[in-house]
Amino acid sequence: MELKLCLMGLGNVGRELIQLIERKRDEVQAQYDLSFKIVGIATGRHGILIDPNGIDHAAALDGHWADRAWPSTEENRLKMIRECGADAGASALVEMSPINRETGRPALDYLELALNSGMHAITANKGPVVHGYRHLSALAKQQGKAFLFEATVMDGFPLLNLYRECLPATHVLSFRGVLNSTTNLILTLMEEGKSFEEAVQHTQDIGIAETDPSNDIDGWDAAVKVCVLSNVLLGADIRPQDVDRTGIRAITPEMIKAAQLARHKWRLVCTAEWVDGRLTAKVAPEEVPANDPFFRLYGTTSAIQIKTDTLNQLTLLETAPTPAQTAFGVLADLIAAARGHF
Amino acid sequence: MELKLCLMGLGNVGRELIQLIERKRDEVQAQYDLSFKIVGIATGRHGILIDPNGIDHAAALDGHWADRAWPSTEENRLKMIRECGADAGASALVEMSPINRETGRPALDYLELALNSGMHAITANKGPVVHGYRHLSALAKQQGKAFLFEATVMDGFPLLNLYRECLPATHVLSFRGVLNSTTNLILTLMEEGKSFEEAVQHTQDIGIAETDPSNDIDGWDAAVKVCVLSNVLLGADIRPQDVDRTGIRAITPEMIKAAQLARHKWRLVCTAEWVDGRLTAKVAPEEVPANDPFFRLYGTTSAIQIKTDTLNQLTLLETAPTPAQTAFGVLADLIAAARGHF
Repeated sequence: MELKLCLMGLGNVGRELIQLIERKRDEVQAQYDLSFKIVGIATGRHGILIDPNGIDHAAALDGHWADRAWPSTEENRLKMIRECGADAGASALVEMSPINRETGRPALDYLELALNSGMHAITANKGPVVHGYRHLSALAKQQGKAFLFEATVMDGFPLLNLYRECLPATHVLSFRGVLNSTTNLILTLMEEGKSFEEAVQHTQDIGIAETDPSNDIDGWDAAVKVCVLSNVLLGADIRPQDVDRTGIRAITPEMIKAAQLARHKWRLVCTAEWVDGRLTAKVAPEEVPANDPFFRLYGTTSAIQIKTDTLNQLTLLETAPTPAQTAFGVLADLIAAARGHF
Repeated sequence: MELKLCLMGLGNVGRELIQLIERKRDEVQAQYDLSFKIVGIATGRHGILIDPNGIDHAAALDGHWADRAWPSTEENRLKMIRECGADAGASALVEMSPINRETGRPALDYLELALNSGMHAITANKGPVVHGYRHLSALAKQQGKAFLFEATVMDGFPLLNLYRECLPATHVLSFRGVLNSTTNLILTLMEEGKSFEEAVQHTQDIGIAETDPSNDIDGWDAAVKVCVLSNVLLGADIRPQDVDRTGIRAITPEMIKAAQLARHKWRLVCTAEWVDGRLTAKVAPEEVPANDPFFRLYGTTSAIQIKTDTLNQLTLLETAPTPAQTAFGVLADLIAAARGHF
C-alpha cells in the first residue's frame, strides 16, 4: 500500500524524516509492503508546495521551489490538509510545527482537520497532545484513524508506542524521569567545572538551546512533557501550569561541588503519581545518589522509570539522541498507522 | 471476541496466568472487547482436562479433577491441541512445558501442531524458539496466526514485542545483557560476603535455582537466551553450543573483593554482534565499572542494551521479576494475537 504524507513544517526533524524515509525505503517495502509519497509540504520560509504526484525528495530538501509554491498563509495550510485528505487512498498529516505551550494551536486545529478529512494524524509537537489528547483521541477512534505522537517525548525512543502496544491491560501507577536534554547537559557541564552562564552559552553554541533558553532552564519543556505523559499514561488531564515546577537557575557551582563530595549529582527530575485521587505532577532539581539510574545520565541522555500494576518497575534509558532519532519516532508512528496497529 | 485457550503445562507461570486473566478480565473486555475461555489444560501430575464449555478457574487452580481427566500421555497432549483447534472460533495454544535445551521438543511439535490446526502459538518456553524460530515463524505467517514468545526472555518485560511493534525497519547491530537472575543473585550475595556454595544454597532455598543449579551457574540458561535474541533480533540461526560460554564457577570471594576495591562488580554478561558476516555470541563473567548500567543490577534484576541503526542505543532494566511478570508476557502475547498485532 501507499501512504500519502502531508508535512506541516520542515525543520531539523522534517528534513531528517525525508532522509530516513529514503534510507529505509526498501526495508519498509519488504517488511510492510508499504511506501510513502510526500504530496504536500508547508514551510514558513519557502511557502507551501502541493503535488498529488509526489514531491521529489531532493527538491523538498533543497527548498528551491518558490516558483511553484503557495504563500505561507494559515488559509493555505488548511487548504493543503483538505486537498491531501480529499485525495483517494490512505494519507497522513505529519505535524511538526513549533510548540504553542499555552493552547496547542494552531497545531491542534491542523490535526483535527486532518482526522475530520479521513487522514491519520501524527505529530512531533507536544502542544496539541497536552491540550487536545482526549478530544483528538476520541475523534481518531470515531474516524478509525491513528492519532500518534511517539516523537514528543524522549526523541522517538519507544515509550508511547511501547505503552500502547506492549503494556496492554496495564495501569501505570507513577513515573519518574529526566526528560529535558538541555538542562541535563548544563548540569553535566557544571559538574565539569563550567559556570551556569558558560554552560548555558555552550548549549546555545551547539544549537540545542534556543536564544531565550528559559523554556528549558525554567522547566517549562519538562513540565510540558510531564503533561503529555500524565495525560496519556496516567489518565490525567493537566496543563503545564498544573505542574509544580522549579527550574535549575538556583543551582550554584557550590551546590554542584557539595553534591560531588557526597557522591551525588543534581538532575532535573520529572515525577507524577496519583495520591488520594489527585494527580501530583512535579519538575524539580533533585540530588540523586550513586545507585540511582539517573546518576550516570550524562549530557543530552534521557531516562524514565515507570511503575505499573503488571510489571513492577520498567527503566528505559536512551543514549545521545539526535533529530534523526526524533524522525524515527515519526516513522514508527506512520508504520503503525499504516498497519492499523493503534 | 472470545479467544479459547489451551494450556500446555500448569506450573508457576500457568497458575499466575490464570489469576492474571481473572484479575484483568474487566479491563481486557473494556479495552479490547476480548475475553478468554480456558478449554484445555495438560499437566503432568493431574492429567489432561478438556471442556469446550470452559474450565472453571478455581477448579483449574485446585487441580481436583482426576475423575474427569485423561491420562498424561504424549498422544493425549496432541489430541488436546487437535480438539481445541478443531473447535470453531479463535483459539491459542499457551505452551509452558519444561525446556529441552538440545532439541526444543516436544514443545516445538506442540506449537507446530497448533499452528497447523489454525491456532495462535504462544510460548514461555525458550527451547522451541531456539530450535524452531525460523520454521515456526514462517508457518505462522503462512497460516495468518501469531507465533509469540515475550515471556522467554526477561520474564515478560516488553522486549520482543517492543522490537516487533515499536522498532520497525530497524536493524539491531548488537546487544549486551545480564539475563540470568540466579547467577546475578549469587554474585550479589557473594558481594555481601557469602561463599559461592552458601550463595548457591540460598538461591535453592528460595526456590529460584533447581536442585542441579548447573543450568544457571554454567551459563546454559544465559546461552539459550542469547540464542533466542540472536535468532530473533539479529537474524542469526544459532544453537546453545554455538555460544562461547563461561559460567561463574571460577569466580572466587577474592576476585569479588578485588573488584570491590576497584569499585567494579562481576556480572555474567551476554553479548552478541555481527563481526565480518559472522555472529559472535558470548556468555562470560565481566568486571564492570561503576558507570556501567549493569553495575547497579542487584539480585534477580535483569537488563539489556541494544544497539540499532535507527535509535542508537536503548537500555532496558527490569526490577525484581516474579512469575506474575512472566505470566504478563504471555497475556501481552495473547492480546497481541487477538488484536492481529503481530
